[in-house]
Amino acid sequence: MIREKLDIEILDTTLRDGAQGKGITFSLSDKIAVTETLDELGVTWIEAGNPGSNPKDLEYFRLVSSMKLKNSRICAFGSTRKKDVKASSDSQLCSLLDAQTEGVVVFGKSWDLHVNEVLQVPPQENLAMITDTIAFLKSEGRIVIYDAEHFFDGWSASPSFALCTIQAAVDAGADYIVLCDTNGGVFPSVVSAAALEVIKAFPNSRIGIHAHNDSGFALANSIAAVQVGCIHVQGTLAGFGERCGNTALASLIPSLELKMSLRCLPQGNLVRIGEFTRRIAEIANVIISDDMPYVGTHAFSHKAGMHADAILKTSRSFEHIDPALVGNDRHFLMSEVGGRSAIVERVKKIAFNLEPPVHKDHPVIISLAQKLKKLEAQGWAYEGADASFEILIRRELGFYSPLFSIQAYRVMNEHPTGQTIACCHAWVKVLVGDTTEVAAAEGVGPVGALDSALRRALTRFFPGLSKVRLEDYKVRVINGKDATSARVRVLIESTDGIRSWNTVGVSADIIDASRAALVDSIEYSLINEQ
Amino acid sequence: MIREKLDIEILDTTLRDGAQGKGITFSLSDKIAVTETLDELGVTWIEAGNPGSNPKDLEYFRLVSSMKLKNSRICAFGSTRKKDVKASSDSQLCSLLDAQTEGVVVFGKSWDLHVNEVLQVPPQENLAMITDTIAFLKSEGRIVIYDAEHFFDGWSASPSFALCTIQAAVDAGADYIVLCDTNGGVFPSVVSAAALEVIKAFPNSRIGIHAHNDSGFALANSIAAVQVGCIHVQGTLAGFGERCGNTALASLIPSLELKMSLRCLPQGNLVRIGEFTRRIAEIANVIISDDMPYVGTHAFSHKAGMHADAILKTSRSFEHIDPALVGNDRHFLMSEVGGRSAIVERVKKIAFNLEPPVHKDHPVIISLAQKLKKLEAQGWAYEGADASFEILIRRELGFYSPLFSIQAYRVMNEHPTGQTIACCHAWVKVLVGDTTEVAAAEGVGPVGALDSALRRALTRFFPGLSKVRLEDYKVRVINGKDATSARVRVLIESTDGIRSWNTVGVSADIIDASRAALVDSIEYSLINEQ
Repeated sequence: MIREKLDIEILDTTLRDGAQGKGITFSLSDKIAVTETLDELGVTWIEAGNPGSNPKDLEYFRLVSSMKLKNSRICAFGSTRKKDVKASSDSQLCSLLDAQTEGVVVFGKSWDLHVNEVLQVPPQENLAMITDTIAFLKSEGRIVIYDAEHFFDGWSASPSFALCTIQAAVDAGADYIVLCDTNGGVFPSVVSAAALEVIKAFPNSRIGIHAHNDSGFALANSIAAVQVGCIHVQGTLAGFGERCGNTALASLIPSLELKMSLRCLPQGNLVRIGEFTRRIAEIANVIISDDMPYVGTHAFSHKAGMHADAILKTSRSFEHIDPALVGNDRHFLMSEVGGRSAIVERVKKIAFNLEPPVHKDHPVIISLAQKLKKLEAQGWAYEGADASFEILIRRELGFYSPLFSIQAYRVMNEHPTGQTIACCHAWVKVLVGDTTEVAAAEGVGPVGALDSALRRALTRFFPGLSKVRLEDYKVRVINGKDATSARVRVLIESTDGIRSWNTVGVSADIIDASRAALVDSIEYSLINEQ
Repeated sequence: MIREKLDIEILDTTLRDGAQGKGITFSLSDKIAVTETLDELGVTWIEAGNPGSNPKDLEYFRLVSSMKLKNSRICAFGSTRKKDVKASSDSQLCSLLDAQTEGVVVFGKSWDLHVNEVLQVPPQENLAMITDTIAFLKSEGRIVIYDAEHFFDGWSASPSFALCTIQAAVDAGADYIVLCDTNGGVFPSVVSAAALEVIKAFPNSRIGIHAHNDSGFALANSIAAVQVGCIHVQGTLAGFGERCGNTALASLIPSLELKMSLRCLPQGNLVRIGEFTRRIAEIANVIISDDMPYVGTHAFSHKAGMHADAILKTSRSFEHIDPALVGNDRHFLMSEVGGRSAIVERVKKIAFNLEPPVHKDHPVIISLAQKLKKLEAQGWAYEGADASFEILIRRELGFYSPLFSIQAYRVMNEHPTGQTIACCHAWVKVLVGDTTEVAAAEGVGPVGALDSALRRALTRFFPGLSKVRLEDYKVRVINGKDATSARVRVLIESTDGIRSWNTVGVSADIIDASRAALVDSIEYSLINEQ
């Protein structure tokens, strides 16, 4: 495989440090989906897990070794050997090797506080742990990335102690030396000074940076390190990670590529960085901030009238970059020219043999863009609801007539309940062809009850629906200021056990918003069964 | 009024630049509440609005002039005079004076691009606009804070042009010169170099920094400016602002106070910065990120097992500061010693003459802390629901017996509807003393219907309830992975037209969660009427 020459090697640790963020958990299939996404984006390294502390990761490493990745290399993560143990008999290091990855990241201690009070070993043994571990992994043919944990705190406490640990790693043959601000508390001025000293002391080594955001300096510290000569940057695409998160690569890479002219990704991929970031956030069931630099949906939203006026004269007046360079848009993703191109791509996927081929100015695309704009103004949002968007496109193209319709439904909450009836129950009447069917069901909440009743009524006609179930359910109030008559947006994730899809519904009535999302989910499932 | 001497003057512009953030709107009473919060925290300046572009702000300035602020001074914001107009006849400047504030912030142009292409005036007229405006405002007795808009972009394009505009502002008598990264795209290295040059050129001027976060450098740029000698920092407490937001003061001030030993707030107030930040976020109907540096609820949450182990040995090993210094906590806000102190404070407010006075180890406090911990584990959250928390405390103290109870209720959604019945209707039966009452109501959603029915049934007994109405309604799914049977948390804001209060309800059933929050809201209203 011939890879493009990049100026900066990006290591994404969403699957390792990112998974240490509160509320972030990846299943095995999530991990594979994240891997595919990062590879498509084109990061150089994917740090995928810690097989020593998490044995179930080995199944992931087995699976990933058979995947054909286009751009990325996989590495496993672990620590230096335990004290007073031979590297080759350290069970954690053996697990690292079992992962059979091209690269291995090992972390060791550079801060005397940690050596004395946490590890509780003499400094010589700490150095031996670093040396033995790296030499052993090199002898097994691995590319070794050495993470100097707490390097900057260590350097501030005792520069000579910290530099000795780096010397040990270099001497043992580490391919990369990565300076870590593990606690996230270091100022950019310290990172510049310390990284420069390391780069001068080890001019033949490849030096990297790993920053955390506990003081809000993760991005600035990564830039400071690159400015003095670091060529390897670790982070997580969406910024997930322990405590306040790791360096958010989606916000860092545009600065490196656009403002420092340093290539981090294969040609042409920067424009899709926002899309990939949202995809990973969706997999993690997290919403990225609207104000996230470069990729947030508000990153190029202008409110002040005079800003808008000035931008009409010259866009540079209130935009630090052209939003199109990162696939973002001045207003809303779906309402402008950039948005029409995105619609074209999706229409092509659904109607791939349309003649003549659709383009940005095709009447169907213009009509879809207008419809989207109108729906967005009412609170609909399709970024997290691909399946609803596909149904919308099919309807617009005339490719779809509904396989069923709901003729009536009723949902009831009763407190307290009688003996024979649950607190939430639903009744629904569906029409399929010429046949109607009614069904009722109970649930712990009104939406669960409606979902059960609806699928019960339809399973007679579409037995495949028995495999479908709800996987996730999110509610957001769109305009809270109107109290209970505000509109709500419901996002539903469904699965048939193999694949998942997302749908959306909006209404002033939470039950009816849920009904809309449930109907889209079932329609999508039936289309894909056909 | 004698104010403490501070090292850094903080200017909070939540009410001006913050209100330019997408989705942020403040009513007049919101603006007053934000002002009170910022004054209690103790920022030096509150930039409160642009009376020239928003005439309704004048009502705010009239109200605020009669408030007794403890710590903060108010300033109004506007631009330099229009081209070819006398400053004293410029209507926008007259509005600024009408605001009758101690300070006035005016912005002018330092970037030739803006002067040539946006203002479209000769450079001499641009300088005259700056000079005339500042001289006029000084002659009217105002403290003048001059915001050099786009200063860093201007300095990068033409240092001499940018510095000339600063010279004009200094010569005209500006009390502060604030260097602005208006587009948010500048690197910390540029801020350091440019700010240092300004400080050297104008050694007798008070220089400030105003940064935006479009590249994620707002915090680092503010620190860089202070490191070279700036003594005035502008931002918004929670980071609200145009596009990607302004410098988040809640994340900046702890770095300045704890790591640079620069006092920004009155003694003892840093520990409450998280509380005030959340209060402002609540007023704006926005949720601050869990991973916000220093003040986010996850900022000191540790997940990796080895981090937890190390922290038990020495907390510095994985914490860049002691979380208690910013009123934060290693785990959850209400579950540790810090949380018990917060409970003591609230109990004292409700039961101010309790004998003996309560303290952290009082049985009532311990029992409340345990109850809270249990409720939080079930998904309850009281940070945005003071009224529910007060009712919880009253129940625990034995200070309250409910004035009513719901004996039964029923909520129905029907689609399609018959002619005489709306899609959502509710029926409720309440018991007050020995008397029961039933009522029914319709609504656009099931919660609105239940709310109407409940208050209709109770108004017979408590006529004051007719003034109460819902102001805001928020829903959050707590554990999305269980689909529709996940628990939901409902937050409700109610008002009687004079004051507002917030309550919370949690259940697997969204209707019953709403019922719990509605009942708390009505109970709270009745207590405060008594």
